[in-house]
Amino acid sequence: MLFAVKMDVHLPADMDPDVKADILAREKAYSQKLQKSGVWPHIWRCAGQYSNLSVLDVDDNDRLHEVLSQLPLFPYMNIEVTPLATHPSDIALLEQDS
Amino acid sequence: MLFAVKMDVHLPADMDPDVKADILAREKAYSQKLQKSGVWPHIWRCAGQYSNLSVLDVDDNDRLHEVLSQLPLFPYMNIEVTPLATHPSDIALLEQDS
Amino acid sequence: MLFAVKMDVHLPADMDPDVKADILAREKAYSQKLQKSGVWPHIWRCAGQYSNLSVLDVDDNDRLHEVLSQLPLFPYMNIEVTPLATHPSDIALLEQDS
Amino acid sequence: MLFAVKMDVHLPADMDPDVKADILAREKAYSQKLQKSGVWPHIWRCAGQYSNLSVLDVDDNDRLHEVLSQLPLFPYMNIEVTPLATHPSDIALLEQDS
Amino acid sequence: MLFAVKMDVHLPADMDPDVKADILAREKAYSQKLQKSGVWPHIWRCAGQYSNLSVLDVDDNDRLHEVLSQLPLFPYMNIEVTPLATHPSDIALLEQDS
Amino acid sequence: MLFAVKMDVHLPADMDPDVKADILAREKAYSQKLQKSGVWPHIWRCAGQYSNLSVLDVDDNDRLHEVLSQLPLFPYMNIEVTPLATHPSDIALLEQDS
Amino acid sequence: MLFAVKMDVHLPADMDPDVKADILAREKAYSQKLQKSGVWPHIWRCAGQYSNLSVLDVDDNDRLHEVLSQLPLFPYMNIEVTPLATHPSDIALLEQDS
Amino acid sequence: MLFAVKMDVHLPADMDPDVKADILAREKAYSQKLQKSGVWPHIWRCAGQYSNLSVLDVDDNDRLHEVLSQLPLFPYMNIEVTPLATHPSDIALLEQDS
Amino acid sequence: MLFAVKMDVHLPADMDPDVKADILAREKAYSQKLQKSGVWPHIWRCAGQYSNLSVLDVDDNDRLHEVLSQLPLFPYMNIEVTPLATHPSDIALLEQDS
Amino acid sequence: MLFAVKMDVHLPADMDPDVKADILAREKAYSQKLQKSGVWPHIWRCAGQYSNLSVLDVDDNDRLHEVLSQLPLFPYMNIEVTPLATHPSDIALLEQDS
Repeated sequence: MLFAVKMDVHLPADMDPDVKADILAREKAYSQKLQKSGVWPHIWRCAGQYSNLSVLDVDDNDRLHEVLSQLPLFPYMNIEVTPLATHPSDIALLEQDS
Repeated sequence: MLFAVKMDVHLPADMDPDVKADILAREKAYSQKLQKSGVWPHIWRCAGQYSNLSVLDVDDNDRLHEVLSQLPLFPYMNIEVTPLATHPSDIALLEQDS
Repeated sequence: MLFAVKMDVHLPADMDPDVKADILAREKAYSQKLQKSGVWPHIWRCAGQYSNLSVLDVDDNDRLHEVLSQLPLFPYMNIEVTPLATHPSDIALLEQDS
Repeated sequence: MLFAVKMDVHLPADMDPDVKADILAREKAYSQKLQKSGVWPHIWRCAGQYSNLSVLDVDDNDRLHEVLSQLPLFPYMNIEVTPLATHPSDIALLEQDS
Repeated sequence: MLFAVKMDVHLPADMDPDVKADILAREKAYSQKLQKSGVWPHIWRCAGQYSNLSVLDVDDNDRLHEVLSQLPLFPYMNIEVTPLATHPSDIALLEQDS
Repeated sequence: MLFAVKMDVHLPADMDPDVKADILAREKAYSQKLQKSGVWPHIWRCAGQYSNLSVLDVDDNDRLHEVLSQLPLFPYMNIEVTPLATHPSDIALLEQDS
Repeated sequence: MLFAVKMDVHLPADMDPDVKADILAREKAYSQKLQKSGVWPHIWRCAGQYSNLSVLDVDDNDRLHEVLSQLPLFPYMNIEVTPLATHPSDIALLEQDS
Repeated sequence: MLFAVKMDVHLPADMDPDVKADILAREKAYSQKLQKSGVWPHIWRCAGQYSNLSVLDVDDNDRLHEVLSQLPLFPYMNIEVTPLATHPSDIALLEQDS
Repeated sequence: MLFAVKMDVHLPADMDPDVKADILAREKAYSQKLQKSGVWPHIWRCAGQYSNLSVLDVDDNDRLHEVLSQLPLFPYMNIEVTPLATHPSDIALLEQDS
Repeated sequence: MLFAVKMDVHLPADMDPDVKADILAREKAYSQKLQKSGVWPHIWRCAGQYSNLSVLDVDDNDRLHEVLSQLPLFPYMNIEVTPLATHPSDIALLEQDS
């Protein structure tokens, strides 16, 4: 089940550089582990923003919250979630029919 | 080059049913043609909304506008465009490096 | 899986009274059928508004969209969807643990 | 009398971890006490947000404010209140009529 | 129990003058009946707006919705409801204490 | 002349408790003095908010600003002002006519 | 007593040209009469908008509403009112002191 | 003197095609005449929108309003105006200094 | 050439009182100098707000930015600028014609 | 390929003056280097704002993000990006045709 997730990052201006580097490294590792496992199939940078648009593939809403709330950057993010359904014009439906 | 495009459809309440059916059929055909050609790699229904979230893959902004403005539903849509860039955590970069 | 759904109704001022009565009767029947089947466990009127706040219980996002898009009032509604997860303070968790 | 209450939590980035743990423990105990007594019949996590959507059942507006303003997290919350009324399509009304 | 209610009126530009006069006369009669009975203790015109700010005194949310949804102008209004509680600085509390 | 005034209070999370207690005590005394003199005829707590909705009765805009800007909490408030006029449906007008 | 008033005009696209010309002529005459009498000391066109920013000088809020609600364009306007007070840096105060 | 002007076009869904074609032709001619004369140095389509972002070069605010209010599409446009000044980092300043 | 300028002041809660007093004194002197020279013909306090609505009279946009950016309170202000043009109903036009 | 970019700068009130001067100097140098190379063809100050409206000319979205995210002021900016396409009324098209 897919969800579009827009994540805006707001780091405090006076954040300790080592703390910041550590969080960003853990965020990257966490994201890549989920990408490899298929939970996080798409991640794009919104050009000119400290934001990403992602698509997550999870079994249910509880799992969605678990995945997002464990993001190392979660306390510094503003997050918007949009549940996605199959679009009736999606050509993947044509392939299923055939 | 990728763009996230959110399309909200607002059809007039008194639209002629035949006109409506015709526009929707042409919209579907247009979208599926672009999906097949790789210009419209993702289309999702926003659950509970008469809206879709799509990702378009075009050469430049002129082509993006051409594709969107020729949508049969374009006159009835509210459209938001977000230019997408490669995210530094995207695992596709790891594969390129190896 | 639960979703909070806020539905605001905007009927055209010049809607034919018979058409309106028919849509409202079908809306009520549709809602009550889903309530009885457990798909629509909560429906509340937002006091002073032509709006309701509902909780739907569906298997996935596709089913959520199916249920909402088939509402007879769907073309006249503005809908906001919030995916709900279990809250860690929910006492239902205590009961599960015991 | 029911009220929908959306609570968004914004903790300061530099909050002392012990102070934070203490507040969260008191918040949980306070919420669970009210859940058990029937004052707080529903609490859901908004997936991907540090927010909850709750339904409170209180005698009047004074009691509603008393309950909410005594939340240990109240100084860190942004709260929206929606008074709820019985919906005319609620099947509970059918049961009352029979 | 008090509620602040902001009512903004939006009449269609092409409304039939007789229909309009009839609705406005019924709205006035309805409001004045409720004012006399104590249900509608305050009504003020927001200067420069086709809007009023009112305070309603009702037993519960169901009664609030009943009163507002029966306004002859209800289909043409945008309504905001704010539940009001006793303010701890209200001098009425001093009088009660003495 | 009446004005509706919505006051939202935002105290800094790290405010010294003694300073806070002192400001709140002065705010209460100031408000009650104005209530007794008739300048501040109504004050209500917006349920669930650190906000009040008040009605002030002053001679003119200069006096309104003087009263509000001398609130001890003024530097910590977000304030919205709505000038109020007599509503043509107000039953007080009936009494004046008789 | 001064009020800043921002008036945005929204005429229906299908308004009868004669009706429109008549309303605009009456609006101009009404405005100029009030300008000459000192009630409407300033009127500016917001460049590029079908809007004006005006300053009205009236005795009280009731008079303000009377003046604005009698504008021939009132049913087609969106109006924002800001009560104005003397600014402590206004050099008119220096002249009064001397 | 430069102004950034964002123009959003909203044509009625039921506009007569001949009327529409005529307005669009006159709009194009009007714009091109002003472009050639130097009054309208930049016009860009906002990709995916029925909108343009333009820069106008006029002597003063009166001329700006004259130019914009005479646009054939003016009654169908939502317009935002931003007055532009020389930026201190603009390299055109370096050339002036040398 | 006139511009309406709305200035909202947001001073940090922990600003040093001497620094604050110095800035406010310089702001007042700066404003009054410009008022006397005719550059700042109107300044009003928005009642109940730490805001002013002003009208500035400058030769062009560069001068407007120069005047505003040199305000001692500029770093603490949120500023909105509206370019003003002559209104066709302004009675000053009648005088010019005669 | 052109993008309109609105950049709003928000520097912390307590920023060290030397740090600030260094960032601003580097920002200016960075901007001017890109202006000279043709990547940043337009930069304007929004009058009365600590903001600029710019037009960037880059090969693709990845380059756009690279250019913007390397701005020394990037961590202190709120940025809005609008992809720009050729406008069909642009007289540059006439020249190309001839």
